[in-house]
Amino acid sequence: MSAIPASLPLRNDLIGEEPYGAPQLDVPVCLNVNENPYPPEPAVCDAIAARVRAIAPTLNRYPDREHVALRQAFAGYLERESGARLEVGQLWGANGSNEIMLQLFQAFGGPGRTAIGADPTYSMYPEYARDTFTGWQLAHRNADFTLDVDRLIARIEETGPSMVLLTNPNNPTGTPLPQADIERVLAACEQVQVAGANPGVRPVVVIDEAYIEFRDPGTPSAVTLIGEHPNLAVSRTMSKAFAFAGARVGYLAADQGIIDCVRIVRMPYHLSAVTQAAALAAFEHTDEQLARVAHLRDTRDATAAWLKTQTYKGTPLRVADSQSNFLLFGGCFDHRDAIFDAMLERGVLIRVVGPEGWLRVCMGTDAEMARFREALVESLRIVEQQ
Amino acid sequence: MSAIPASLPLRNDLIGEEPYGAPQLDVPVCLNVNENPYPPEPAVCDAIAARVRAIAPTLNRYPDREHVALRQAFAGYLERESGARLEVGQLWGANGSNEIMLQLFQAFGGPGRTAIGADPTYSMYPEYARDTFTGWQLAHRNADFTLDVDRLIARIEETGPSMVLLTNPNNPTGTPLPQADIERVLAACEQVQVAGANPGVRPVVVIDEAYIEFRDPGTPSAVTLIGEHPNLAVSRTMSKAFAFAGARVGYLAADQGIIDCVRIVRMPYHLSAVTQAAALAAFEHTDEQLARVAHLRDTRDATAAWLKTQTYKGTPLRVADSQSNFLLFGGCFDHRDAIFDAMLERGVLIRVVGPEGWLRVCMGTDAEMARFREALVESLRIVEQQ
Repeated sequence: MSAIPASLPLRNDLIGEEPYGAPQLDVPVCLNVNENPYPPEPAVCDAIAARVRAIAPTLNRYPDREHVALRQAFAGYLERESGARLEVGQLWGANGSNEIMLQLFQAFGGPGRTAIGADPTYSMYPEYARDTFTGWQLAHRNADFTLDVDRLIARIEETGPSMVLLTNPNNPTGTPLPQADIERVLAACEQVQVAGANPGVRPVVVIDEAYIEFRDPGTPSAVTLIGEHPNLAVSRTMSKAFAFAGARVGYLAADQGIIDCVRIVRMPYHLSAVTQAAALAAFEHTDEQLARVAHLRDTRDATAAWLKTQTYKGTPLRVADSQSNFLLFGGCFDHRDAIFDAMLERGVLIRVVGPEGWLRVCMGTDAEMARFREALVESLRIVEQQ
Repeated sequence: MSAIPASLPLRNDLIGEEPYGAPQLDVPVCLNVNENPYPPEPAVCDAIAARVRAIAPTLNRYPDREHVALRQAFAGYLERESGARLEVGQLWGANGSNEIMLQLFQAFGGPGRTAIGADPTYSMYPEYARDTFTGWQLAHRNADFTLDVDRLIARIEETGPSMVLLTNPNNPTGTPLPQADIERVLAACEQVQVAGANPGVRPVVVIDEAYIEFRDPGTPSAVTLIGEHPNLAVSRTMSKAFAFAGARVGYLAADQGIIDCVRIVRMPYHLSAVTQAAALAAFEHTDEQLARVAHLRDTRDATAAWLKTQTYKGTPLRVADSQSNFLLFGGCFDHRDAIFDAMLERGVLIRVVGPEGWLRVCMGTDAEMARFREALVESLRIVEQQ
């Protein structure tokens, strides 16, 4: 960052803020942003290029603003993935689930309104709130990072938020959120009056399922609840299990009323024809894109078991129960930045995030995980002795 | 739109609002959204597909958040197009200039702040203001749609806006904005205190150059003023002359301080790797992409001359002086919606926009313009007789 000249009318609440994002460093082993480490197969790459080539002669024209074909593909994928049968009008795409969340905040947040999450949770949520002048409150999770449903509901009833944000599985902890808990929150919200809104206006409950494909097979998704709950919004992404982070495609599944609210605030033509084409090609190769998810689940479980055998200053490492492709581990690191640095020196990039004392690592390839384990053993020994 | 359920906490000021955008209709001749009617050449399409194929194996990873290669390409293009020599740190890309403008409003607008434009002007500006809770004011243009600089400066001095938005050439009128007028506004703003901000904070002056490539050759661009003015922001797009609307690439040229403010509010990884690749390929074929711009200028001048020979209810049509690829014409249409409908029935889609009594048409291919002329003659005769 350069120094920002004092003549610029940067919003007062942004002065001194840094752009959000993990460091993008050129490091041999990147385990810091929860990507799927397995690149698309050549056949998928060919299909993407072919789809893009097919629409390239239309690129002088604006794209389909309603991205109908892609919304059909979202519906097809969700039916396969969760069993839910949704219509095009119940789906919506954007440039990453970041943009989905921002659009939800633009429609349902704003000055005088409040959104509630349950910390520790995804560190972008307060940024969406800040960027839309929405108040941001937190109901603390239990010590094991499970949701304290009673505490959350009490906080909702006390505050009358316009939005409740729950992450399943949670980031950065990986903690699954049982469907019964979601249903309790939904039921409670149906009795809550949004502060400052017309009578009968209820909070929108957003379930952020960015990592949901990594859950145990057979576990339901909140998309199966959409038909019964007009105020339920489920955010999804192609960036994680689907191995398509570079294409920036997030999507929203919800009652058509919520989609129609989002359509009011979306930028016209927000989703390019190239993005739509690339995503359609990837969905045609869903089997290939998801082929490594089961292996990443196994890697997670094996890595969690291994981490629990490690110690730091005589204390066994703790590992948060995870249904995602990452693990929050440690719980006892008095100098987590030093451990992070020592790992980085060994060519392994992990993430300083979440509560003090913890670090997060996402699942890489087998070779990357071997390097992670080796680097961690060395790093813990070095930092212990400092 | 479905009916939005009363239980949804849609912001009060959005209730009853419609999504922005011209109708996307399947019509033989689309002259409504100011696209370049000439598709990319096959060689350009091949290059786009090849660049996308080359990055496809990385799509499991997030894109370069700082999109450095693309910012270098923006710099190269602007040097060629306007003679300005800018650094990577003075450039920034986004998903269309819509997103550039939204990011500027997110950084410099907000509750208690005001942006000023000069109407008639681009109809998205009030939407950016609405979406960021920024006040929106207008200083009226002269009867011939030129900027009334004295009136604008008086309004700026009276209001203390944090943003001043000027469009060159203006949309929907096509009116050029002389560099001397821009310099007067910049000089005046250097003495203006932004209301509610710290002393010495001055407005950001945004020059929206979406259509600038259609200006008379030799006319300067505001990007040549950037070195002297830390509060000057110039918005550009690949969507118009550059014939790349479907790829959704807008960009910002400004002092690095402004770019750094925008970086605080941008969504992380807002610009996909696919978009970056496609745009780089298009910039490698700048000659081909711009090949029809001179012809479209000629088409505009010929169409303007022809329109002036036409009459409606005995009155010759007026045509606003345009340095863009569209013309605002009429000025005497007492039933412009009826004329629009009659044109549409004849397979020609134009735009109802701008002051009452006027319609806008953008320049198509020669064949499309022949159909436009034929349809307009018929439509005017029919509506006259209703």
